[in-house]
Amino acid sequence: MASGKELCEGVEWRIRVVDGSSEVLVPPTGLARKVWLRTKGLISGLGMKVRMFLKQAWDMGTNDPRKVIHCIKVGLALTIVSLVYFMRPLYDGVGGNAMWAIMTVVVVFEPTVGATLYKCLNRVCATCLAGFLAVGVHWIASQSGDRFEPFVVGASIFILASIATFSRFIPSVKSMFDYGAMIFILTFSIVAISGYRVDKLFDLAHQRISTIIIGTSLCILVIMLVCPIWSGQELHSLTVRNMDKLSDSLDGWFRSRCVRQYFTNSNGEDDQKLQGYKCVLSSKASEESMANFARWEPSHGRFNFRHPWKQYLKIGASMRSCAYCIEALNSCINSENQAAESIKKHLSTSCLKVSSSSSSAIKELAESVKKMNKSPTIDLLVEEMNSALEELHNDLKSLSHLLNPSTTAENQISATGLVPFTEIIPVVTLASILIEISVRIEALVGSVEELVKEIEMKDKIVAKEEKPEGTMKALQRV
Amino acid sequence: MASGKELCEGVEWRIRVVDGSSEVLVPPTGLARKVWLRTKGLISGLGMKVRMFLKQAWDMGTNDPRKVIHCIKVGLALTIVSLVYFMRPLYDGVGGNAMWAIMTVVVVFEPTVGATLYKCLNRVCATCLAGFLAVGVHWIASQSGDRFEPFVVGASIFILASIATFSRFIPSVKSMFDYGAMIFILTFSIVAISGYRVDKLFDLAHQRISTIIIGTSLCILVIMLVCPIWSGQELHSLTVRNMDKLSDSLDGWFRSRCVRQYFTNSNGEDDQKLQGYKCVLSSKASEESMANFARWEPSHGRFNFRHPWKQYLKIGASMRSCAYCIEALNSCINSENQAAESIKKHLSTSCLKVSSSSSSAIKELAESVKKMNKSPTIDLLVEEMNSALEELHNDLKSLSHLLNPSTTAENQISATGLVPFTEIIPVVTLASILIEISVRIEALVGSVEELVKEIEMKDKIVAKEEKPEGTMKALQRV
Repeated sequence: MASGKELCEGVEWRIRVVDGSSEVLVPPTGLARKVWLRTKGLISGLGMKVRMFLKQAWDMGTNDPRKVIHCIKVGLALTIVSLVYFMRPLYDGVGGNAMWAIMTVVVVFEPTVGATLYKCLNRVCATCLAGFLAVGVHWIASQSGDRFEPFVVGASIFILASIATFSRFIPSVKSMFDYGAMIFILTFSIVAISGYRVDKLFDLAHQRISTIIIGTSLCILVIMLVCPIWSGQELHSLTVRNMDKLSDSLDGWFRSRCVRQYFTNSNGEDDQKLQGYKCVLSSKASEESMANFARWEPSHGRFNFRHPWKQYLKIGASMRSCAYCIEALNSCINSENQAAESIKKHLSTSCLKVSSSSSSAIKELAESVKKMNKSPTIDLLVEEMNSALEELHNDLKSLSHLLNPSTTAENQISATGLVPFTEIIPVVTLASILIEISVRIEALVGSVEELVKEIEMKDKIVAKEEKPEGTMKALQRV
Repeated sequence: MASGKELCEGVEWRIRVVDGSSEVLVPPTGLARKVWLRTKGLISGLGMKVRMFLKQAWDMGTNDPRKVIHCIKVGLALTIVSLVYFMRPLYDGVGGNAMWAIMTVVVVFEPTVGATLYKCLNRVCATCLAGFLAVGVHWIASQSGDRFEPFVVGASIFILASIATFSRFIPSVKSMFDYGAMIFILTFSIVAISGYRVDKLFDLAHQRISTIIIGTSLCILVIMLVCPIWSGQELHSLTVRNMDKLSDSLDGWFRSRCVRQYFTNSNGEDDQKLQGYKCVLSSKASEESMANFARWEPSHGRFNFRHPWKQYLKIGASMRSCAYCIEALNSCINSENQAAESIKKHLSTSCLKVSSSSSSAIKELAESVKKMNKSPTIDLLVEEMNSALEELHNDLKSLSHLLNPSTTAENQISATGLVPFTEIIPVVTLASILIEISVRIEALVGSVEELVKEIEMKDKIVAKEEKPEGTMKALQRV
C-alpha cells in the first residue's frame, strides 16, 4: 500500500496547454502533503548531514586515538585548575585573578609537548618582562603629575605595542617569540592601564604572574605526564613515513601503473599507495612547524636536547625534489603518445631494475633514519642502483638499432620490425626522468648520512659531558 | 701605530716543546689585554648582530610599508581602547572588566580585514553561546545543592572542553570556527566557575559580552577604515603575481639559461627572475589561509561577498603542476650529458617558440585574472602555442635524419655529420617536458576561464538583486 502511494507520488500527470507549454496536474490535497514532504526532506537531509559529520568525527577519533586523548587531557587540566577556585586557601591567595590560570590553560594547551612548552615559556617570560616594564612606566607617569599621566601611559602603550607588533613580522622573531610578543602587548597594556585605577599595582602584577605560573606548570605537568606527544618524535616519524611512501609510490606505482601498464598494458593495483608521493609534496608546512616546536623540547626517548632538527628539513627538501620528478613521470605515463611495443619491451627490464633498486635504496634510508645510524647496506644499494642505471644507459644506447631512420616509412613498421622516431620519445623521456630521480636519490642519501653523522657527534658530546654522572644518561634514555 | 699593534696581535710566536707539540708564546702583559680584546670583540660582535637585525627590520619596513601601517593601527586601536579606562562614565558602565576590551583588541587584531572579521565574529558568537550555556549550567548546578554544585560544574567543564577541543581537529570546523571553539571553552570555564563565587553572574556575562563587543567593533572600524588590507585582494594579487613569475621563469629562464646556454652556450642573465617558479611551489599554505579569510569579507572593490575564492585555489594547484615540470626541466639543463651541437641547433628555434608562446599565454592569463574578464586573445595564443608544439613535434620527428644508426660509429660524427643516439636523449627529454608544460598550461587556461565565468555569473546575480536599489551597487563599487 505504502509503496503504491510512493509510486503514485513518482508519476506526474501533465496536460498540454494551448500555448504549447505543459502544466503539471496536482491533486487538490497536494499542498499540505507537499509542505509535509518538503519538511520531511529537509529534516532527513539535516539528519543525514549531522550523521555524516558525526561519522567523520568518529572515524577521525578511531583512526588517531591520540586526538581523543588530547581532548581528555585538556578537560583534565581545566578541571584541575578549577580546583584553584573551589579551594578556599588558594582562592584567598591569588584572588579574583584565578581566572588567569584558567585562561592560561585554555590558551597554552597544545597537542604536542614542544608547542605547549613554546607557549608556556613565551607566556611566562613575556608576562614578567611586560609586568616590570609597565610598573616602570607607571612610576614615570605618576612622577609627571595628574594631568600628564594619561598621556605618558597612552604614548608608551602606542609605541611599545607598535614596536612589538612590528617585531612579529621579522622571521627570526616570529619563529621563536611570536606568541610572546602578543602576550607582551597584552600584559603591558593591562598592567599599565590598570595602574591608573588600581592602587595595588604590584599586587596585580604579582597575582597575574603567579596565576600564570600555576597555569603553565599544570599544563606542562599534564602534557608531559599523560601520554605525551613530542613534536620531535612526530617530525622523526613523519620523515620516516614520508620516505616509505616515496619508496612505495616509486616502486609500486612504477611497477603496476607505469611499467606494467605502460610496458605490458596490465591493470594498476592499489591506487592509494601509488599516490603516496603527494603527501611528501604537501608536508613542508607541517615539517617546519614541528621542527620549530621540537627545539623547545627537552631530551626524550632517543632524542637529545640539541638534536639536529634542521637536518630533517633538509631531508624533507630532498624528498620533495624527488617527488617533483615523480610528478613529472606521472605525465609521461598519462601522455597520449603511447610508445611502440617493441621499444617498451626493450627497456622494461632495465627500467624496472632502476625503479626497484632506487625504491629499495629509499626504503633502506628510511630504516637508517628510523634507527638513527648509518645503514651497512646503503652503499651496496646505491651501487646496485648505479649499475642498474648503467644498464639502462646501455639499453638506451642500443635503442637506435630498433629505429627506423626514415620518417616517411611509418607504414613499414610491421614489415621491418623497426619503429619511427616519434614512438620512442615517450620511453626516452620516461627513462631520462627515472635517471634524474636516481640522481636526486643520491642527494637524499647524502642528507640522511649528514643527519646520522650529526646525531652520532651530538651523542658523543652528550656521552662525554655526562660521564661523571652516568645515571643521568640512563635516566634520559628511559 | 694602531695598525702596527693589530698586526702584532695577528702574529703568534710558537716554540716546539720536547714532546713534539707546539706552545704559543704570550707576552706577559697579555692577560689584561686579552680580556679587554675579548670583551671588545664580544661587544662589537653583539653590536654587529643588533645592527644586522635592525637593518633587516628596516629593509622589511621599507619593502612593505603596509606592515608599518599595520603596527601603527594596532597602537592606535589599543590607545583608543585605553580611553575606555580613562573616561569615567564608560568605566562606571563596564566596570573592571574593561580589560576584556583591551584583551580583545590585542588578540583579535590581524593584518587583514578577513582574518580580523573571522576572529571578531568567532569571538562574539562563541562568547554569547558559552555565556548562555554557562548560566544554564550554573542554574542546574545551583538546583542540585551545595554539595553537588562543584561536581556538576566540574563535570560540565570537563565534558564541554573535551568536545570543543575535539571539534577543533575536524577540518570543516577548523577552517571556520577554530578560534571560536577556543573562546567557547575559555568563556564557558570562566563564567561557569565564577558563578560559584560571584553572585552577580548575569552581570559578569553581560559585562564580558559588552566589553568584547566594544573591542571588536573598535577593531573592525580601525581595520576597515585605516588603509584596509583585504585577504581577498591579497589572494587575487598573489595569484596574478605568481602567474607573472611563472611566465617570467618559463620564458626568461628558458631563453637565457636553458635555450641560450643550452643551445648556444651563452651566459644566464638575472637569476632571481628565473627562480620565480619556486614562489609558486611554496605558496600553497598562504593561498589556503587567504582564501579561508576572504570568505568572511564583505564586498570590497571589485570583489562581491560571494566571490569564487575557491577557484583561486584551483588555479594555484594548476600553476603548481606547471611549476613541478619546470623543476624537472631544471634537472635536464643541469644534467651532465650535454647534447650534440647539431641537435641543439635543430631544435632550438621550435623550443624557443614553444616556450615563448606558452609564456605569453600565461602572461595573458595573468592579465585576464587581473581584469577579471575573459581575455579576447587567449584563444589565439593557445592556438599559437599549439602550432609551435606542432612544429616541435615535426622537428622531433625529423631528428632521426641526424641520427647515426650505428652506436659503434661514435668516432665518425665529424666525418658524417650524424650523432649517436645517446647525445639526443637530453634534448628529447627537454622537448617532451616542454610539451608536457604546454599541456598543463591548457589546464590552467581552463581553470582561469572557469573563474572568469563564475565571476561574471555572480556579477549578473548581484546586478539583478540590486536593480531596485541602484545606489547600493554604486556604493559597493566605490
